[in-house]
Amino acid sequence: MRTFIVVGHKATTTPDFSLEDIPGTSGRLDILCRCINAAFVISHGIRHDVRILLVLCGGEPHKTVCLRGEDLRHLNPDERTTAALLKKALAIVAWPEWSMSTSGIFVRTGGLGEVLSDLKAKGIKPAYLREDGMDVHEADCNLSGDAVFILGDHLGMTPEEETQILQAGAEVISIGPACLHADHCIVLVNWMLDTGMLGDQTIIRPIS
Amino acid sequence: MRTFIVVGHKATTTPDFSLEDIPGTSGRLDILCRCINAAFVISHGIRHDVRILLVLCGGEPHKTVCLRGEDLRHLNPDERTTAALLKKALAIVAWPEWSMSTSGIFVRTGGLGEVLSDLKAKGIKPAYLREDGMDVHEADCNLSGDAVFILGDHLGMTPEEETQILQAGAEVISIGPACLHADHCIVLVNWMLDTGMLGDQTIIRPIS
Repeated sequence: MRTFIVVGHKATTTPDFSLEDIPGTSGRLDILCRCINAAFVISHGIRHDVRILLVLCGGEPHKTVCLRGEDLRHLNPDERTTAALLKKALAIVAWPEWSMSTSGIFVRTGGLGEVLSDLKAKGIKPAYLREDGMDVHEADCNLSGDAVFILGDHLGMTPEEETQILQAGAEVISIGPACLHADHCIVLVNWMLDTGMLGDQTIIRPIS
Repeated sequence: MRTFIVVGHKATTTPDFSLEDIPGTSGRLDILCRCINAAFVISHGIRHDVRILLVLCGGEPHKTVCLRGEDLRHLNPDERTTAALLKKALAIVAWPEWSMSTSGIFVRTGGLGEVLSDLKAKGIKPAYLREDGMDVHEADCNLSGDAVFILGDHLGMTPEEETQILQAGAEVISIGPACLHADHCIVLVNWMLDTGMLGDQTIIRPIS
C-alpha cells in the first residue's frame, strides 16, 4: 500500500465552502482535490493499492481525511465532485478515532503530529519530498510499494512541521529539477513505483 | 518549444456550458482543463516553453484552441477558472486563421486534419502516445525539447483519426505500464524532458 500525506495549511476543516469557488472559499482544498485525482485515478479505474491522508490545518482542531483505494467509490476525476466528497466528510462529527463518511473516506480530529505518531508506532520512516532533497535514486529509505511520501501544499512546510517530520526519521528527497505542485509529484511517484524505478515493481490493480 | 495535442472527442465548440457542471455540460472539457494544468503549471510560475493544442470535436465545424506558454496570462491551476478561459475563447468568432481570445489563447475552426497538415508543412513528425506503443526509451522519433506529442481523451482515437495520425508519420509510443489519463501523461512527458531522460535536457523557464 502506497501512502501519500499532504498538508493543507489553510485547508478548511468545515463543510462551509462553496463548490462554485473552491480555491477562494475552502483554503485551497482544490490543491488537495488534485492530489486525490493524482493518487487514485487511472484509465478505466481507481488504484487499489493507494491511500492518501489529507491534513487540514485551516481550523481548530486540525482534521485529517483519509481516502483508501481498496474501498473507495464514487470518485470522479474532476475537482468539483471530489470537493463534494470532502464536503460530506467534513460535515460528519469528527473524533480522535476514524469515522467513515462515504465508502473509503474517513475523517478524524488531529493533524500532522498524530499522523507522524501513527507512522512511528508502526516503525515506518517516511520520505519527505522537497525540491532541495537528495535525488530519489540515491535515497536510502524504503521506496518500494509500501512507501510513505509526505508533501506540502503551495505554502511548503513551516519550520515546526519540518522539525516534526525530520524527528520522525524522514529522508528528504527530490524527484527532479523542476519545482512541481504536489499533485504532479504524486503522478510521478506513482509512475516511478509502477515502473519499478524505485525498487520492487508493484502490480497495478484497478478496482472499478 | 514542447507541443501537446489533445483530442476532445465530445468537447463542445460553443461557450454554452455550465461552470457548475463542466463534465456534464461541456462534453468533458474538464479533461482538457486538467491537460492545460499539466502542461503549464509549475510552482511559482507557468512553463514558458510549452504549447498545447486542444482539438474540440463536439460541434461542427470542429475548433482548435491553442494555449502558448510564452504569453499566457491569468492561468490558475484549478479547473473552473481554466474552463472560464476556454469559455471566453469559444465565445469569439472563429475563422480558419487563428484569432486571439485572451493573452496566449487562440482559437480557429478546423480539427485534427488541419493540425496534422500544419505539422507536415513544417516537416515535424509527432509522437503518438498509446498504451501499446513502443517504449519511449526505444523510440526513434525526435523527443527533445521541440517534440510534439499527440494524446487522446477518455475515448481514445477513432480508426479514422489513427489512420490520419499514422499517415502524418507519427511514431506510436508508450510511457509506462499503467494506462493513464492524458493529463498524467503530460506531467510525465514534461518531467522526462526536464530531466533529459528523452534526449537533450531543456531549461525550465517559468514566466510568472
